[in-house]
Amino acid sequence: MKISAAREELLAQLQTVSRVASTRGAIQALSGVQLIAAGGRVELRATDMEVGLRVPLPAEIEREGSVVLPARLIVDVVRSLSGPTATLELRPAEQDVELVAGNAQFHIRTLRAEDFPPFPEPESEGVVSVPAKAFVETVLRVANSASRDETRPVLTGIMVSASERELRMVATDSYRLSVKETTLEEPLVGGFEANVPARALQELARLVQQIDGEQLSVGVRQNQVVFQIGEVVLSSRLIEGQFPNYRQLLPDSYEHELTITGSEVTDVVRRISLLAQKNAPLRLSFAPGELTVSAQTPDIGEARESLPVAFQGEPFEIGFNPDFLRDGLESVGSGDVMLKLISPLRPGLIQSAEDGGFLYLIMPIRLNV
Amino acid sequence: MKISAAREELLAQLQTVSRVASTRGAIQALSGVQLIAAGGRVELRATDMEVGLRVPLPAEIEREGSVVLPARLIVDVVRSLSGPTATLELRPAEQDVELVAGNAQFHIRTLRAEDFPPFPEPESEGVVSVPAKAFVETVLRVANSASRDETRPVLTGIMVSASERELRMVATDSYRLSVKETTLEEPLVGGFEANVPARALQELARLVQQIDGEQLSVGVRQNQVVFQIGEVVLSSRLIEGQFPNYRQLLPDSYEHELTITGSEVTDVVRRISLLAQKNAPLRLSFAPGELTVSAQTPDIGEARESLPVAFQGEPFEIGFNPDFLRDGLESVGSGDVMLKLISPLRPGLIQSAEDGGFLYLIMPIRLNV
Repeated sequence: MKISAAREELLAQLQTVSRVASTRGAIQALSGVQLIAAGGRVELRATDMEVGLRVPLPAEIEREGSVVLPARLIVDVVRSLSGPTATLELRPAEQDVELVAGNAQFHIRTLRAEDFPPFPEPESEGVVSVPAKAFVETVLRVANSASRDETRPVLTGIMVSASERELRMVATDSYRLSVKETTLEEPLVGGFEANVPARALQELARLVQQIDGEQLSVGVRQNQVVFQIGEVVLSSRLIEGQFPNYRQLLPDSYEHELTITGSEVTDVVRRISLLAQKNAPLRLSFAPGELTVSAQTPDIGEARESLPVAFQGEPFEIGFNPDFLRDGLESVGSGDVMLKLISPLRPGLIQSAEDGGFLYLIMPIRLNV
Repeated sequence: MKISAAREELLAQLQTVSRVASTRGAIQALSGVQLIAAGGRVELRATDMEVGLRVPLPAEIEREGSVVLPARLIVDVVRSLSGPTATLELRPAEQDVELVAGNAQFHIRTLRAEDFPPFPEPESEGVVSVPAKAFVETVLRVANSASRDETRPVLTGIMVSASERELRMVATDSYRLSVKETTLEEPLVGGFEANVPARALQELARLVQQIDGEQLSVGVRQNQVVFQIGEVVLSSRLIEGQFPNYRQLLPDSYEHELTITGSEVTDVVRRISLLAQKNAPLRLSFAPGELTVSAQTPDIGEARESLPVAFQGEPFEIGFNPDFLRDGLESVGSGDVMLKLISPLRPGLIQSAEDGGFLYLIMPIRLNV
């Protein structure tokens, strides 16, 4: 393999792809970036076996072939170069790549190409084209609720379903549940349903924000999904197992429905949460016309703040995990928040007053006294 | 104690002073900020027993007194507040401070004031007034060379001496030595010499950069130094023990003296250093008209780059720690670098071609082959 590329493009594409490279693990090649020059084009690839990413590199090919180079080192080296172009050439006998830019010459030992897995090829059959911006905005509304606990893998994914004019994503870590239904402007041709690792979708969101491309093509297969936007391909394994039926989790009706200015209640919750340390809950006390948010951490202190709300009926108190409550309020974005409650031990619902497509269900914490 | 202050001023001063508070250690009060309302003014104080900082707080005093509050929590709380002012009141019975801002009310448990040490008072006697900017610029030229190794405490300081029109600072970690002599525009009244912890001087540099004030007053006492700029007072213990006599360390003469474009050689050293991992040295190979910088890390790779230099005589090679060489080159700042060498096992000298007051002496590393 021998290629020449503009230094800045090489750096930008290496930085993009290397985010997906594994940062730990037994297989050294997975901490690398694969450069493939074949069929007249150059592609950079990285994977940690769960998520894979392929990005094109505009380059001049002198000799086709492929190598795997340590991701972090090659990014650092290319970042440090001066001069407009860099040439990379595999030296098979030395098992290294000679990188030349200006007067600087590097020989970088290659990683074992045999350990680098093959990538799924994008297909044109059975692929659904979705507006990229709507897809990514939907991801970002629910991704926080996905679990980071690998012992319950089914909850580390986002359940994505799309058909006709409806795109829906659901995520839950069993303490809270986010649902976002986005109505598309044009009906889709075809549809799919898949439990995609949240990490893959967050990586996809980052990519879409930095790549031009209006349409995202989604190909759901047996146990993996392939996203393509422009010439960039992100693939991910799918998560197996039964994802919770979120409709069964939503209460049929609520006792109290309150509309509050979102920014105001979010600020209050952020402030008072500072005194809800060491797993202390945030306490919401409702009385006619008033909501008081309070928290207490033994040996540290306590905090409270009241704000006017249109609450009527018997006063009652409910406790929430402060971080989860804040996540829910922040997910609503700007505008008014609707808070729906039943009783101290039943889940509460946070909705946007403007965006009926978004739901955030949050489990309460039992309060002592 | 009861005071009211503008929220933004309170936050700014808390953030400044809390940088000095201890982040670990057995005495809890040292992780706190002391608020003292006395004599019609409010002051914030923090210390880790080595460095102490006192900053004024413009505030309305309703009742004088003092408290110690956990630094990090109080900064977070004040940052989270809305509204223009905050009131803080000590509640002795509850051993907490009531902080009220807008509708928000916090009760924050105080730390043990008895454990908070007394601070040295600035004096007017025996104090030397130094231009703040020149002082700080001198600190920043040498501070990198101070040792971080607490087992040789004498080297963790910067030896500062000032008299007449000369301000000199020296720092060394025994691998490299920095000397900066600054000529002052006006002769000083009085003088001093002291080995001040580098950390204290770096904190002072940060303060001077954010505070208005042209003159820094320096009071060197038995075993501590008190710096004052405007109403801000930074004190530090002094380091005892014999600081190396730097003049004895400087070679009398050099075999080779080369002038190189600073930015060019610094870039080359930065790049090639990427392949000097795992304690590998950077190799400088001089041949007539050419300097080649190279490095090699087993199993990773190697790098080399040549640049033209006006070298004459027998080719020779010398090895340096890549980080220390880069530090020295970067300390020169812009402009040409003078590199003075004797032989592969004698120290090298880096100087600025423009600024004769700066010296950077660096020990070589013995090269294998």
